[in-house]
Amino acid sequence: MRVTTDPQFDLLVIGSGPAGQKGAIAAAKLGKRVAVVDTREMVGGVSLHSGTIPSKTLREAILYLTGFRQRAFYGPDYRVDQHITIAELWARVAGVVAREMSVVNHQFGRNGVELLPGAARFVDPHTLEVQGSDGTKLVRAEHVLICCGTRPAQSPEVPCDGKRILLADQLGQIEELPRELIVVGGGVIGLEYASMMAALGIEVTLVEQRETILDFVDLEIVEALSYHLRRLGMTMRLGEKVSGVSIDERGRVSAALESGKHVHGTDLLYTVGRQANSDLLRLEAAGLSADARGKLTVDENYRTAVPHIYAAGDVIGFPALASTSMEQGRLAALHMFGGTPCKSLAVIPYGIYTIPEISMVGRTERDLTKSKVPYEFGIAKYEELAKGQMVGDETGLLKLLFDPVSLKLLGVHAIGESATEIIHIGQAVLSLGGTIEYFRDTVFNYPTFAEAYKVAAFDGLNKL
Amino acid sequence: MRVTTDPQFDLLVIGSGPAGQKGAIAAAKLGKRVAVVDTREMVGGVSLHSGTIPSKTLREAILYLTGFRQRAFYGPDYRVDQHITIAELWARVAGVVAREMSVVNHQFGRNGVELLPGAARFVDPHTLEVQGSDGTKLVRAEHVLICCGTRPAQSPEVPCDGKRILLADQLGQIEELPRELIVVGGGVIGLEYASMMAALGIEVTLVEQRETILDFVDLEIVEALSYHLRRLGMTMRLGEKVSGVSIDERGRVSAALESGKHVHGTDLLYTVGRQANSDLLRLEAAGLSADARGKLTVDENYRTAVPHIYAAGDVIGFPALASTSMEQGRLAALHMFGGTPCKSLAVIPYGIYTIPEISMVGRTERDLTKSKVPYEFGIAKYEELAKGQMVGDETGLLKLLFDPVSLKLLGVHAIGESATEIIHIGQAVLSLGGTIEYFRDTVFNYPTFAEAYKVAAFDGLNKL
Repeated sequence: MRVTTDPQFDLLVIGSGPAGQKGAIAAAKLGKRVAVVDTREMVGGVSLHSGTIPSKTLREAILYLTGFRQRAFYGPDYRVDQHITIAELWARVAGVVAREMSVVNHQFGRNGVELLPGAARFVDPHTLEVQGSDGTKLVRAEHVLICCGTRPAQSPEVPCDGKRILLADQLGQIEELPRELIVVGGGVIGLEYASMMAALGIEVTLVEQRETILDFVDLEIVEALSYHLRRLGMTMRLGEKVSGVSIDERGRVSAALESGKHVHGTDLLYTVGRQANSDLLRLEAAGLSADARGKLTVDENYRTAVPHIYAAGDVIGFPALASTSMEQGRLAALHMFGGTPCKSLAVIPYGIYTIPEISMVGRTERDLTKSKVPYEFGIAKYEELAKGQMVGDETGLLKLLFDPVSLKLLGVHAIGESATEIIHIGQAVLSLGGTIEYFRDTVFNYPTFAEAYKVAAFDGLNKL
Repeated sequence: MRVTTDPQFDLLVIGSGPAGQKGAIAAAKLGKRVAVVDTREMVGGVSLHSGTIPSKTLREAILYLTGFRQRAFYGPDYRVDQHITIAELWARVAGVVAREMSVVNHQFGRNGVELLPGAARFVDPHTLEVQGSDGTKLVRAEHVLICCGTRPAQSPEVPCDGKRILLADQLGQIEELPRELIVVGGGVIGLEYASMMAALGIEVTLVEQRETILDFVDLEIVEALSYHLRRLGMTMRLGEKVSGVSIDERGRVSAALESGKHVHGTDLLYTVGRQANSDLLRLEAAGLSADARGKLTVDENYRTAVPHIYAAGDVIGFPALASTSMEQGRLAALHMFGGTPCKSLAVIPYGIYTIPEISMVGRTERDLTKSKVPYEFGIAKYEELAKGQMVGDETGLLKLLFDPVSLKLLGVHAIGESATEIIHIGQAVLSLGGTIEYFRDTVFNYPTFAEAYKVAAFDGLNKL
């Protein structure tokens, strides 16, 4: 083992996912010497290799190859490609991943960010050893930004074999599409994959321990999602806990539930929780410690208990979205070197890439009721919109929540085609303190889904 | 001929297109007695029957049936359906038109707006005769809102036969898709149809009298459009005027150009200008007159020279978009009965449904330069976005124009998938007086096209 000491950096970033990338680039733009540690094959992080990018690319490919969007016109059994293979789906994914990796590498290069290939571990609060294929280097840095990300959590009850009993990041390894899939875990990741597989015509059984799904999402939107998942043939077993998983005598995957029932399938996908990779960093050498799931606690400026060490992205927990992680990384770097107190990321949109997709920004009815804030609502159904009819979206819905006196917008909740795009119209009005009169008085391109804001505003104003 | 006198209305609306609909409903919501005159088969106006709705539905069907959006993945010759027939395309259109017609009828019914089937002509400033299939009625009204719309203008040089030499509203009548199409007129309508036909694999030759197309659109966006239309195999003959059209001895349509050249095709589509239908209203009986193209002049409150008669929609000219017409109709009714001075429709978005689609809001570089307003710009190419790669959009582009000192947003210009949707994010920031720092500091769902705002804002800010 060769040990060398590298020149000092102003910032060493652990991990090259969305938070690490944006943190590194923000610091480099301030003229700082920045290095990012990650293995070459993992540049871009989990988001690029087994998370956001593959799953959303897969989703687009499935929507297209199944002719899903055309079923309103040609009936529920319509398929473009009757024999969709896993190879075909992953070919699409591989192309996008390769392209995005080169974007990330190029951005690092253009901004003078050095990539140190390997795995990092603390030696002391300012020194890390980077273990790469060509040996181990010691690297000293003024500041450290921990963006080490997460991996799927495992459970002793579910013996994942990477073949028939899978974690989400093993989906890329399977050789054949399942015929019947058990999805354990009704969180965002579980629901996204479950809905994609159902759209492919696979029989999906979803098992979730809680009685409800997506508790942070508007109830009406969740109901619309559940309705459509059931229409796709999905079986939802809520309030059921898996006590054991085995492959039975007939070669099927069998999940035993605590209630005594058994569910069967050709394959099982386990998506319950994520474990942060901070256990691999030898945190104690930096004077840091993490919680049981590996999460680090940070203050409002993304600073850990050790003042020159920051953390951002999935390792600090909720919401653990690529979109917020990017901004956390950038804000952390700005605070580190500019002393700028981080603006709170108050008006954060959430995008859930189920089929149909969901997005929201601002407050929910549940939350407003709990806080005793009076509100009124206005709704537009996509089927009322010319655009909804043209593209055959019969499921879409946009809901505005607003103050009945000041008419200030309080929240926007959407499900359906382009929901993750058009939510940003409401987000701008919310952030800039607009009222729903803005939507009433604004001209929207026709036909668009964006027009739903106007329809919903009229609906809401008519209620007053 | 039976002549009866109907009870008096507070408002008589001539025409049931977007302006007429929204004007009638706004007045009805104020408790007014409202009637709309239109023939039963034309409820919804040109927008519904031969304009916006059919052309945008056709566009969605073509994008889908050709597999256009998938060509980035499968190559330029990829087609989902190798034998696309005109019947198939129109079946999609007919379904949407029927559905939208019932929406309009239902809205009238729900709001107590009476439909008087037939054609209206002024008898005096407060009286109109409505000639329907069951006779002629005299109708008196306190106010009149003229939303009579337009029809395609004709030219003596181009003898349209509705078979091979067509006006845009005759496209629904053809029995077979053209093999080679000459499109005369490079305005919005001409370009929309030309790009759709090119996407279908039809050889299109566009002839436009001016040296340039879409003068009100950002030059970079127009260049991007031209580039892609040429890649689709379209021939563009700009600065050429058609002097005559005939069917030659070999049975082909031949257009003679003033420059001495001839262009040939199996079919020709003539889309030069629109003629307002006001010539059918006997305006002189109301004390009104129109210009040579039938257009009526209105003040900032959509009031004609006769104070109780208003006009809105295509009949008052530019921009003649369904989106603006709706709002004009509504504002006219509010002014009529509420005395509310109309807010100027300053921040109007423009949506051009070419392939790829274009949208804009606010000022252009040309306009800012002419007014000596300094500006800076920031650009995001869709190919830099994860979403752009996932859906295979290699052409998209979003450009922000902003004040380099105050950073106020001045204009947004976009081409590519969802351009007409995401423009409304910029419109909200523009309307509410935001700066481009808003985009820098905002979390956008990832992956989305909306993220282009953030990328473009960084690009712009880096230039300062």
